Amino acid sequence: MVKKVVLAYSGGLDTSVILKWLQDQYQCDVVTFTADIGQGEELEPARAKAEKLGAREIFIDDLRQEFVRDYVFPMFRANTLYEGEYLLGTSIARPLIAKRMVEIAADVGADAVAHGATGKGNDQVRFELGAYALNPDIQVIAPWREWDLNSREKLLAYAEQRGIPVERHGQKSPYSMDANLLHISYEGGILEDPWAEAEDGMWRWTTAPEQAPDRPRYLEITYAHGDPIAIDGEPLNPAQLLAHLNTVGGEHGIGRLDIVENRYVGMKSRGCYETPGGTILLKAHRAIESITLDREVAHIKDELMPRYASIIYNGFWWSPERRALQTLIDQSQRLVNGVVRLKLYKGGCMVVGRQSQESLFDPRIATFEDDAGAYNQKDAGGFIKLNALRLRIEKRLQG
Amino acid sequence: MVKKVVLAYSGGLDTSVILKWLQDQYQCDVVTFTADIGQGEELEPARAKAEKLGAREIFIDDLRQEFVRDYVFPMFRANTLYEGEYLLGTSIARPLIAKRMVEIAADVGADAVAHGATGKGNDQVRFELGAYALNPDIQVIAPWREWDLNSREKLLAYAEQRGIPVERHGQKSPYSMDANLLHISYEGGILEDPWAEAEDGMWRWTTAPEQAPDRPRYLEITYAHGDPIAIDGEPLNPAQLLAHLNTVGGEHGIGRLDIVENRYVGMKSRGCYETPGGTILLKAHRAIESITLDREVAHIKDELMPRYASIIYNGFWWSPERRALQTLIDQSQRLVNGVVRLKLYKGGCMVVGRQSQESLFDPRIATFEDDAGAYNQKDAGGFIKLNALRLRIEKRLQG
Amino acid sequence: MVKKVVLAYSGGLDTSVILKWLQDQYQCDVVTFTADIGQGEELEPARAKAEKLGAREIFIDDLRQEFVRDYVFPMFRANTLYEGEYLLGTSIARPLIAKRMVEIAADVGADAVAHGATGKGNDQVRFELGAYALNPDIQVIAPWREWDLNSREKLLAYAEQRGIPVERHGQKSPYSMDANLLHISYEGGILEDPWAEAEDGMWRWTTAPEQAPDRPRYLEITYAHGDPIAIDGEPLNPAQLLAHLNTVGGEHGIGRLDIVENRYVGMKSRGCYETPGGTILLKAHRAIESITLDREVAHIKDELMPRYASIIYNGFWWSPERRALQTLIDQSQRLVNGVVRLKLYKGGCMVVGRQSQESLFDPRIATFEDDAGAYNQKDAGGFIKLNALRLRIEKRLQG
Amino acid sequence: MVKKVVLAYSGGLDTSVILKWLQDQYQCDVVTFTADIGQGEELEPARAKAEKLGAREIFIDDLRQEFVRDYVFPMFRANTLYEGEYLLGTSIARPLIAKRMVEIAADVGADAVAHGATGKGNDQVRFELGAYALNPDIQVIAPWREWDLNSREKLLAYAEQRGIPVERHGQKSPYSMDANLLHISYEGGILEDPWAEAEDGMWRWTTAPEQAPDRPRYLEITYAHGDPIAIDGEPLNPAQLLAHLNTVGGEHGIGRLDIVENRYVGMKSRGCYETPGGTILLKAHRAIESITLDREVAHIKDELMPRYASIIYNGFWWSPERRALQTLIDQSQRLVNGVVRLKLYKGGCMVVGRQSQESLFDPRIATFEDDAGAYNQKDAGGFIKLNALRLRIEKRLQG
Repeated sequence: MVKKVVLAYSGGLDTSVILKWLQDQYQCDVVTFTADIGQGEELEPARAKAEKLGAREIFIDDLRQEFVRDYVFPMFRANTLYEGEYLLGTSIARPLIAKRMVEIAADVGADAVAHGATGKGNDQVRFELGAYALNPDIQVIAPWREWDLNSREKLLAYAEQRGIPVERHGQKSPYSMDANLLHISYEGGILEDPWAEAEDGMWRWTTAPEQAPDRPRYLEITYAHGDPIAIDGEPLNPAQLLAHLNTVGGEHGIGRLDIVENRYVGMKSRGCYETPGGTILLKAHRAIESITLDREVAHIKDELMPRYASIIYNGFWWSPERRALQTLIDQSQRLVNGVVRLKLYKGGCMVVGRQSQESLFDPRIATFEDDAGAYNQKDAGGFIKLNALRLRIEKRLQG
Repeated sequence: MVKKVVLAYSGGLDTSVILKWLQDQYQCDVVTFTADIGQGEELEPARAKAEKLGAREIFIDDLRQEFVRDYVFPMFRANTLYEGEYLLGTSIARPLIAKRMVEIAADVGADAVAHGATGKGNDQVRFELGAYALNPDIQVIAPWREWDLNSREKLLAYAEQRGIPVERHGQKSPYSMDANLLHISYEGGILEDPWAEAEDGMWRWTTAPEQAPDRPRYLEITYAHGDPIAIDGEPLNPAQLLAHLNTVGGEHGIGRLDIVENRYVGMKSRGCYETPGGTILLKAHRAIESITLDREVAHIKDELMPRYASIIYNGFWWSPERRALQTLIDQSQRLVNGVVRLKLYKGGCMVVGRQSQESLFDPRIATFEDDAGAYNQKDAGGFIKLNALRLRIEKRLQG
Repeated sequence: MVKKVVLAYSGGLDTSVILKWLQDQYQCDVVTFTADIGQGEELEPARAKAEKLGAREIFIDDLRQEFVRDYVFPMFRANTLYEGEYLLGTSIARPLIAKRMVEIAADVGADAVAHGATGKGNDQVRFELGAYALNPDIQVIAPWREWDLNSREKLLAYAEQRGIPVERHGQKSPYSMDANLLHISYEGGILEDPWAEAEDGMWRWTTAPEQAPDRPRYLEITYAHGDPIAIDGEPLNPAQLLAHLNTVGGEHGIGRLDIVENRYVGMKSRGCYETPGGTILLKAHRAIESITLDREVAHIKDELMPRYASIIYNGFWWSPERRALQTLIDQSQRLVNGVVRLKLYKGGCMVVGRQSQESLFDPRIATFEDDAGAYNQKDAGGFIKLNALRLRIEKRLQG
Repeated sequence: MVKKVVLAYSGGLDTSVILKWLQDQYQCDVVTFTADIGQGEELEPARAKAEKLGAREIFIDDLRQEFVRDYVFPMFRANTLYEGEYLLGTSIARPLIAKRMVEIAADVGADAVAHGATGKGNDQVRFELGAYALNPDIQVIAPWREWDLNSREKLLAYAEQRGIPVERHGQKSPYSMDANLLHISYEGGILEDPWAEAEDGMWRWTTAPEQAPDRPRYLEITYAHGDPIAIDGEPLNPAQLLAHLNTVGGEHGIGRLDIVENRYVGMKSRGCYETPGGTILLKAHRAIESITLDREVAHIKDELMPRYASIIYNGFWWSPERRALQTLIDQSQRLVNGVVRLKLYKGGCMVVGRQSQESLFDPRIATFEDDAGAYNQKDAGGFIKLNALRLRIEKRLQG
């Protein structure tokens, strides 16, 4: 039935086996698609491997700029955290991959897409909801839900049998990892015991706070319309800016996180994350909003945020509800302009200053000193009295 | 009209002037009330001073246990943060003061209460909403909104004229401060410029991260029904526990915060806060919930939290809406039991482990290894298909 | 694998075929369970039929009281409407059926439950989520998702072949219907065209407004703790009360509804409903709350209601999130006591009066006449000024 | 201090007294502003009266089109109801009046605006928040909060003394009323007893259901982008359309409402409303959305609606939070196009059909008949299993 399938291909063992398995199982052409979203790996080896394994066409795209500009930054406009802590580093990359897969499928006339996510995780949902939303007639092949290669041994046996090269150099990481310009994540291995502390050697992007520099680093981030556009006065494009913050933040041990989260498929899972740049951007964005955004708009955003985060976490980026919320979020950012000053030190990231041409902080009113009548303290009496009215009536009448 | 008034009395200059001014202005008896809520000051001097200034009766109460048990802990069950950052250290103490003022007024037959909060801040609202809610017929006197002693000079002149002792030893802090077992806060002075970094010398409770110990400290906090009950296995009562965490957290530089917040009275203001124990408890509580609380209940709590925080921040602790939300929050905590392990280091506080008899983390299902059929990956196909259905219909029909 | 299964058995053709099919397909014992939840059908014929078809055991339960008291009334405490209109008549009955099925399964040692809901609707979800939540190890058999009897013809052929009696008297309704003490619903047939008006002859419970009495009927409903307990002063138990309101409301043409709703499985569907008693109770409950419930609590309830409605509609009655919300809802009803007076006339139901010992309506304050100082109009000036403050600052600073 | 004030002038006794009182009290010029927002009164008498009473300039504006197009319709896009019932007929007119007052003040160089709303109601808040938001430096004069003419007798005495004509023909209505194209409202008089039924003679816009025509009337309303644009196929501009619906709805007794509501200033008050056109539009808009709007977007709108309603009710139309929510609401309406068919009969308004080119109702999928594979019922099994997963785990682990 399937004639041609676009496979999200990393070049690793799993998706290499899938490449071959698709050809075997579906007797179809396989087009590979490998994206650079800042995962920090060479992509040319993926090309060579795909060629060797008989890929019909090979797409390798640098999506870093688009990723940060159109996915990461819009999400950060909402101060998005899933379950109070997770910066959604994996979740936010999947919709972009899904979109490119569907575009490539249209380009090459493929009738299906395939991915290497397992049937237990969130990523399958994110890939597939994205693909279906953008092309409702696309077929999706999720080999992990179909085949019987459900152990490392079987996978290796299949690889050997079908001539798929298996890298033996070095040791396979005990963790399941995912990386892009926003973060690197770790699951599995000893992390499956939520009481076990992650090993020091696991963390890859950040210096341990204990090894971080003894002197704090100050940083100034400039915002325009809710997005960061410059660091220490130097304009940077989105991908550069995030990469730069990852470097600086990583050096100072910023952005390690160890949580148990609730997956959309219904189970709890433990994950460790390094998000140096994102951790800084969350603090900075809240700070620039704190002086430029109206209180009630800020509170509405805070109340909607958990739902917006769930929408992204659950894979509904390409949904009308995400777009509806995004409209509100984006509209709120028109005057979120200015500069935030932060101090990074051994894993800590603290806001120490913020300024803006559009600041709503009015020192003439807030001052403890004489305000020259800018604020009439007597007004507060009536304000309190009317706010108290229903409470007083209730106490009198209902006791 | 007013015959007897209960004054929330700190023993400082401002409330001493108020003590006298109330006698002068209202020709009434003044009963002073001074509470120990862990602000870390000697209270006996307040007694002596109140006596000297002609207080009719003097109440000095140790409310530390009640404060932490009945106010701080219930609030922490909701992972409460105002505007994403503020732990509500000042806000949560006011309802207790208001309650005791009203109780004392009933005891001594007073017809009014008075406080020393200014007409610009949130505290006047919190005191007065509490007082009105608990006694709708009480009168409230807020001298700062009534008198013309609206500068330091006038205040000092009045003090001198009426024989009120003014401490000259040492230097007056340039900051307006508030302290209790949960936090100490700073406003005013150079903080009125939101770009200016707080001076090192301002912070009182926490060691600067740079001066904190070079070795991390591990800590285990035991939870029962959502409240912390022991540290490193040692049972502690609420006030002890929070005090202990303040000490340890303070040593390690935990809990400094510098924000611009939105006051209920309509202005933005800049505040700096030290909340060492509270910062640890927020992280720990989220961690224990992460393995014991259902996903959807956790998400409902997250969505309601900003409103619950505003209710407390705005002074509506003694309101039916706070009680309604508290009912839901408390009900959710029945099985929030277990132990959280944290690592403190130079200002950082990281969760590194969590365990519970009531854990919902099921490693047999979450595992990357063979799960022996505990989870059928094929189910995910149907799950995704039906979740995608409306997206596909929309794409087909609305494009 | 399955040895004994409890089948939710209506006595109709579909579930009779299922009864036989389960025996054939699974070679297992079938225990039937038929509930009286006020659907208005004789249940003894179901017993006879089940016996004839070889049911191993037969349970016939009168659940009317439990249904109204523990499911309908708690739901009405929240003024629950799905998508602004639907009173959830079908949704609210399913959790009770699921609970009884699981209880019976435990009693008779069955390892599975089965139901006759199709794979397209919400009811399968409601039955199964309930069953799984109450017994996580139960097996669920949903024949409509398994078998190939997917047309009326095949079903009839199977019935004939296996000796299942098919009633030929009268004509089969063109609609798929569901009834209980709360409502009767219609789907399918010409209703599948959302532009087509429902035929007059379809409606079964309510007189057409055009044929309803020419004189209005007044009704007084007494509430205690948010639940109705008497009509026109006569105490009635929950089932009696709802039945009575159905009769009176039905006579007066109250409670017809024609909507297109969004199913949990992802499609839109058109349904017509008759909910005479429920329509009256919704109006009446809002009215009694209007004088006894605090504003902010009422608003929180209104904001949570759509989610609570979705939880029930989607089948999550037996979930921790429904229980959490129910706690809040129930707590709010403590003082929701009093009497509501309504006028029923030709399809309309209007509140014309409400009174309560716990009323928060204070005529001394609300009056347009002289209030003798109960309310100081000058307070409003300060109230408005401080509420306007942030708006004024914004206009000045951001334009 | 005040040199020139713009007065919202109705031509009635109260605002005529205010016109004179402002001249007396403030020794300032008074500019009158009278708006036609469809209240159904002659405005030229107001001009004559204002001239006679010495108004410096007189503005009489026909704002009907703007009112319906820019205020009523945007609000109806959200299916807005305050406290589940009130269609906000008064609330939605105030922001427009406030805007015109501020514009006229700018035109004529006035430094203040004045209105005739009392200090107990919501309208003062709505007028003044609007005025302050649009011109933060405007002064607001609210005579009812300032003067001592706080009884009818004093008002009449003042009128007599200052030569203000008092109409003696007919009898003064015992109700406080407000009317515009959306509704007419009644407060005060016997309505201050919430148990007392409104007198038949009170209602002005709607025929009593008992007197309404014996034959139902069918109506088709065409929607484009969420707004009604035609009735029975005939295009009408916003004001025409609403006026037409008021006429037809009024004839059929549609839109009477009797409620107790919670005012922003803290008290409960009883109001009766006639909103014939609005009642029809609410039903119709929900119906057109039911086939054109995505489920999740509809649910988000439903959850935000109570807050949006409160924002308008409380007078915050001209606030950033209203604008933020409006952005989301408006974005959702892009494809809310089509026709709704309704049946009006003796006070009842029922949707009987709806159709749209952008319909998301897919009969091929929803059908009870063979769907030719459009929907795979087996998918539902996995969907339910994964939705049940967390419930099953909880039951197993927490019991």
